Amino acid sequence: MAQQTYVEKSFERDTNYITDRIVADPQDGPDGDGARQWPVEAGRYRLVAARACPWANRTLIVRRLLGLEDAISLGLCGPTHDQDSWTFDLDPGGIDPVLGIPRLKDAYEKRFPGYPRGITVPAIVEETSGEVVTNDFAQITLDFSTQWTAFHREGAPDLYPEALRDEMTEVMDRVYREVNNGVYRCGFAGEQESYDAAYRRLWDALNWLEERLATRRFLMGDTITEADVRLFTTLARFDPVYHGHFKCNRSKLTELPVLWAYARDLFQTPGFGDTTDFVQIKQHYYVVHRDINPTGIVPLGPDLSGWLTPHGREELGGRPFGDGTAPGPPPAAEVVPEGHGA
Amino acid sequence: MAQQTYVEKSFERDTNYITDRIVADPQDGPDGDGARQWPVEAGRYRLVAARACPWANRTLIVRRLLGLEDAISLGLCGPTHDQDSWTFDLDPGGIDPVLGIPRLKDAYEKRFPGYPRGITVPAIVEETSGEVVTNDFAQITLDFSTQWTAFHREGAPDLYPEALRDEMTEVMDRVYREVNNGVYRCGFAGEQESYDAAYRRLWDALNWLEERLATRRFLMGDTITEADVRLFTTLARFDPVYHGHFKCNRSKLTELPVLWAYARDLFQTPGFGDTTDFVQIKQHYYVVHRDINPTGIVPLGPDLSGWLTPHGREELGGRPFGDGTAPGPPPAAEVVPEGHGA
Repeated sequence: MAQQTYVEKSFERDTNYITDRIVADPQDGPDGDGARQWPVEAGRYRLVAARACPWANRTLIVRRLLGLEDAISLGLCGPTHDQDSWTFDLDPGGIDPVLGIPRLKDAYEKRFPGYPRGITVPAIVEETSGEVVTNDFAQITLDFSTQWTAFHREGAPDLYPEALRDEMTEVMDRVYREVNNGVYRCGFAGEQESYDAAYRRLWDALNWLEERLATRRFLMGDTITEADVRLFTTLARFDPVYHGHFKCNRSKLTELPVLWAYARDLFQTPGFGDTTDFVQIKQHYYVVHRDINPTGIVPLGPDLSGWLTPHGREELGGRPFGDGTAPGPPPAAEVVPEGHGA
Repeated sequence: MAQQTYVEKSFERDTNYITDRIVADPQDGPDGDGARQWPVEAGRYRLVAARACPWANRTLIVRRLLGLEDAISLGLCGPTHDQDSWTFDLDPGGIDPVLGIPRLKDAYEKRFPGYPRGITVPAIVEETSGEVVTNDFAQITLDFSTQWTAFHREGAPDLYPEALRDEMTEVMDRVYREVNNGVYRCGFAGEQESYDAAYRRLWDALNWLEERLATRRFLMGDTITEADVRLFTTLARFDPVYHGHFKCNRSKLTELPVLWAYARDLFQTPGFGDTTDFVQIKQHYYVVHRDINPTGIVPLGPDLSGWLTPHGREELGGRPFGDGTAPGPPPAAEVVPEGHGA
């Protein structure tokens, strides 16, 4: 995502997104809120993400776990962005080779001239029209799981099992409010009092997770689900960014025995660590948020070598992919650059 | 100390101090550099310090280890200061009860009207004249050890043993350049390149110390010396401040097995932990350095409870106070407030 302003008295995320969906069986015309349904179709849409962004990182993981690489193409923005937009500055000439645009904003403007809200990743863009379809990050990954089934790879895991959805909604809501967004609430608090409250909320939630995961291999039990994907992208950024930059510093992730082992277990699972780019993650936060890091200097730490150490979580049992299998290696064009991982 | 500006292309400390000394056998008149020698005399001088400041914290430790509390009185400035001066904002009415001034600057101006350099702690002020005598922090503690011997308590340790001085100078120089000052070089670097170089220098030095202290209980061997005092005040500030605020974040002190055990060993020794005020330490850095922390928000972390855990360093042998003994508890008026320690 991208926010145009950061530090506020008490940080509140703008949660107005384009709520169009891409579904297997679309209804004609917009719904009561004006949202449209688009048809699932291989080769029609481009996922625009940025490895730096935790919300976008979720889509990279789920797309890979489900094997949707051939059905949905991928455009990657660079780690930093200006006041206006994420940009395709990693591509030759700074232009996305499929959409032919330098800035993600162009796809938003193509569909909604004068689009008034933040230009956020992840976004899905229709390749032929160049128009943005949706940037509703929470829905995008669920729709990958439930609507794109015709294009899932053989052995794709069920990341959103029907029997678990009620409990998942509860867990994911709490993780979203208290952890995914909770770290931002700490970092962008403009007053000591709101920071103090945000810090306590965050650590209450991390205590809860430390306890919940002590006896469960994954958040919902024996297998990896969407809930794990959502927690993982925050944990991966915790020591490199949130601990210092956002002052979430009761302790490092490496000092939380359960969560650190859990995070390493996922990191070492295909789809998680191999979509994580620590260099871009650090550049993004430390360069973009000049209001809390005026120098723009990016720390060289932390030492990340611990991510590849044994985690011991196999002792809890479990079947990471349930009845499915692990995905193969990422397509060559999508490999995280050497030296950007752990 | 206090610096009027912080972030520079490449941080360089202003090392021009008032180099007057207080000695047991003073010479008349100024030396070639204009520095004067003042006579050691109980009840004549007031040490002005701030618990927040690592350079001033050294004087608090050494004064206590040597038992100079009755000979040299103590004035304490609050943790924050304005552009102009450290202030006595902790005292009733904001006035030092002995010197009768609100700002340390007044004592500098009394002696040197228009004093052009930084108003730093520690400083020693003559009580009757109200004039600053010296702020030469590195010399002050050595003179406590070598010049004030007539007023040392019974059992005061020898913190600056003659036989070790050459090696101590070498070790303390390296610790000063690479560690005490090295953390500032990281934090106040204005360019990525100078930060990167500063970070590498710091961690080279911490690697060296990790190795040196693996087989030695203290920096110079079996007993505590001035060299340990100097390293300790930086280590005590490492996780609460330097790790995040100054981006010295390869790892936390708590993740360096040897240095963490060494720091706890000292912390649990009378004179060290009981002069350390973590609340003031954090307030100082995070409030004063608005150019690297514009919100002025002070982090609630880290969890400091680990400082009191067993360190196991007794296994290396050694006699912390040599032929001397540990000091008794601090005078009631000088006890670190409840909740400000570990």
